[in-house]
Amino acid sequence: MSVTSELARYVVEARPAELPEAVRREGMRAVLHLIGCAIGGCRHDTVEAALAALREFAGAPQASLLGRSEQIDVLNAALLNGIASHVLDFDDTHATCFVHPSGPVACAILSLAQHRKVSGADFVNAFVLGVEVECRIARAVIPAHYEIGWHLTGTAGVFGAAAAAGKLLGLDHRQMVWALGIAATQSAGLRESFGSMCKSLHSGRSAQNGLSAALLAARNFTAAEQGIEGKRGFANVMSTTRDLSVITDGLGATFELMSNTYKPFACGLVVHPVIDACLRLRAAHGLTETAIERVDVQIHPLVLELTGKRTPRTGLEGKFSVYHSAAVALIDGEALEAQYTDIRVNDPAVAGLTARVHATASPEIGREAAKVAVRLRDGSTLDCHVEHAVGSLEHPMTDAQIDAKVRALSVDVIGGARTEAMIALCRALWDQPDTGAVARAATPAG
Amino acid sequence: MSVTSELARYVVEARPAELPEAVRREGMRAVLHLIGCAIGGCRHDTVEAALAALREFAGAPQASLLGRSEQIDVLNAALLNGIASHVLDFDDTHATCFVHPSGPVACAILSLAQHRKVSGADFVNAFVLGVEVECRIARAVIPAHYEIGWHLTGTAGVFGAAAAAGKLLGLDHRQMVWALGIAATQSAGLRESFGSMCKSLHSGRSAQNGLSAALLAARNFTAAEQGIEGKRGFANVMSTTRDLSVITDGLGATFELMSNTYKPFACGLVVHPVIDACLRLRAAHGLTETAIERVDVQIHPLVLELTGKRTPRTGLEGKFSVYHSAAVALIDGEALEAQYTDIRVNDPAVAGLTARVHATASPEIGREAAKVAVRLRDGSTLDCHVEHAVGSLEHPMTDAQIDAKVRALSVDVIGGARTEAMIALCRALWDQPDTGAVARAATPAG
Repeated sequence: MSVTSELARYVVEARPAELPEAVRREGMRAVLHLIGCAIGGCRHDTVEAALAALREFAGAPQASLLGRSEQIDVLNAALLNGIASHVLDFDDTHATCFVHPSGPVACAILSLAQHRKVSGADFVNAFVLGVEVECRIARAVIPAHYEIGWHLTGTAGVFGAAAAAGKLLGLDHRQMVWALGIAATQSAGLRESFGSMCKSLHSGRSAQNGLSAALLAARNFTAAEQGIEGKRGFANVMSTTRDLSVITDGLGATFELMSNTYKPFACGLVVHPVIDACLRLRAAHGLTETAIERVDVQIHPLVLELTGKRTPRTGLEGKFSVYHSAAVALIDGEALEAQYTDIRVNDPAVAGLTARVHATASPEIGREAAKVAVRLRDGSTLDCHVEHAVGSLEHPMTDAQIDAKVRALSVDVIGGARTEAMIALCRALWDQPDTGAVARAATPAG
Repeated sequence: MSVTSELARYVVEARPAELPEAVRREGMRAVLHLIGCAIGGCRHDTVEAALAALREFAGAPQASLLGRSEQIDVLNAALLNGIASHVLDFDDTHATCFVHPSGPVACAILSLAQHRKVSGADFVNAFVLGVEVECRIARAVIPAHYEIGWHLTGTAGVFGAAAAAGKLLGLDHRQMVWALGIAATQSAGLRESFGSMCKSLHSGRSAQNGLSAALLAARNFTAAEQGIEGKRGFANVMSTTRDLSVITDGLGATFELMSNTYKPFACGLVVHPVIDACLRLRAAHGLTETAIERVDVQIHPLVLELTGKRTPRTGLEGKFSVYHSAAVALIDGEALEAQYTDIRVNDPAVAGLTARVHATASPEIGREAAKVAVRLRDGSTLDCHVEHAVGSLEHPMTDAQIDAKVRALSVDVIGGARTEAMIALCRALWDQPDTGAVARAATPAG
């Protein structure tokens, strides 16, 4: 049996009851987290520009724009929610293939679930399967595919969205093969786009095009039978090396979603260990800014290379400053969007402590590790060594931490009461009779 | 100046008045021909399946589906007309880069021109510029890009659609750079799709995604500044070799559209010389089937390899039979869709003459050439040697032949009167105050 056919067979046949409890729970966490990210990003200029460009051509108000009061047709909702979910670079990351897996998949089926009734169990199952498909396809072609210049959230995401949507549409095996083939021939997304609005377009288009692949296949729109492995198919055309066995080995026995990670802090992953150490010291010792004389951090050389901004002047520069990140974490006890504003970066107390942070690159420190020493004005010194930062696979965010992150992203957008209701719906998603309620809850009142 | 920037500059600045008369005329021919192809394909299963899948999510009836009574939103019209234009494999072909250039470009801006008023001169200018952009980008990366497995009508077409639509939207230079960058990061289409409905999806998606790239750029949706030539841009990621000078050399001095060709016959190009020779013999000598004892054709070996079906049983098999093609051309004096039906292939007179056609492969015959000898029952023999078949760059279809082809594709779909009106509108397209009238005319009455 060919790779595309075998993968399609698995997706068509996998039933909710077969999902292990831990995978089911991780599915619900991932969906909640993704919705939080989309709500947090829903007013970004990128989303506003896309909505302004496309709304006059859009269809009936069938699905919610997460975090917003407008509704739009199902396919445009997939696009716009997908953009919003990735625009803050705060969404999830698969630990081994670096796909941001939830955006394309969840945004495709959150839209669809508002158009046709989908139970929570079916939804979570389809979501898990979509993530499985995109991450397996991604793993089969990395690192060459990435190094060539492809952005996997676009190129692999479209397969995940197609598989998940196709599952909810009840595609038969032949149609699922076509859905994957239609996805393959739309696979796109160049890393040249990084730093522009097109980076988050990749997440949105893969959601929209994957959903549309499934809708087309449901009408017997035909495609290549070997869209993934064929001579002129995805893996041969879009990568110089490939290991197709990764796509089919152990299907149903392992779950890619269990390698998913979530970012606790609103900046690049490399500076997370330092922030984590600062937060632990602050919590353990009740630190205040005035008590701190000097902070010394030891980090992997790459961290200093990427985040060595000594005196940041803007919130964005703050994200590229390990100095600011350490200082603001010690003062605020947080490292969310609120800690990376122009105002916060230029606050005299924050900037003052930033100037008292000293960083040393040390090749002995792992990329995921950091050592932080805080010398207090009373002469004492407090140390913390973080081997794996919170949010890593070894030290995952707790449910309470995910909830807190979602709250921080959502409360100012849709209000506290609706945020809590949405969190509660997601946490019990498996038992919801109608998943459409979740996306509808993730909007402002009225 | 970078390639993307220079190309964008040219598109933004090029004015209708600068178009040479011959290019202007070729633009109008190409648009008419493309509309004919789309009308001919508009009821194909591929179009029906796509429309059935997408219509419930579509927007307001803003633009015509060519050949059909339905209207749909501008972006879906671009998609569906693009599919229809390519589904018969009867649309135009660029002689050196093998892009089917008109579908993506014309379908994008025919839709747009129904939403905002566009003069004929501006329309033809934008069309010519779109073809220029897609063919130059294609030429810069062939043959490697094609050999890897990319379908240029998808991968390059999206740039052409973006440029043409962006021109009509009045994008400034910075926005045109973004439009090309948004196109680049959506560039897609695998040759693995050949033989499935996805082949014509490539023409449709490139029209739709190119148009949407221009609409996004008009709202200042940002993209890579070097979408074509950047390290992780189109040319480096999607090809193993490239000659970027092809994209910018001689802009405004040469026109890719002048290398465009049109297919006179409804089968693969390789068998066109034989058909052309048979039609010439029939016309010159008033041949009838009963007068013919035997037909001998000499052809390039590739022709026999690709179209060697000795006894075709279906219309589709007839397209892969040089024997049937010669016989039916001699009997009917045509080689259009009507000559490639199951009924026509199995007609006793046609099948009888097919059996009396003999083919010899000869390496001395060029790929674009054929020799045909017809021995009559009276003992005489008639010869014809075609060096370049009608439809080739050396022997282009006349305006009258284009009109006749369009009529054959269109009359049964929208009726004779509307076909003539549509042809007249296209032939005088340059002087139309409102190009939207053309697409509206290309539909059935009522």
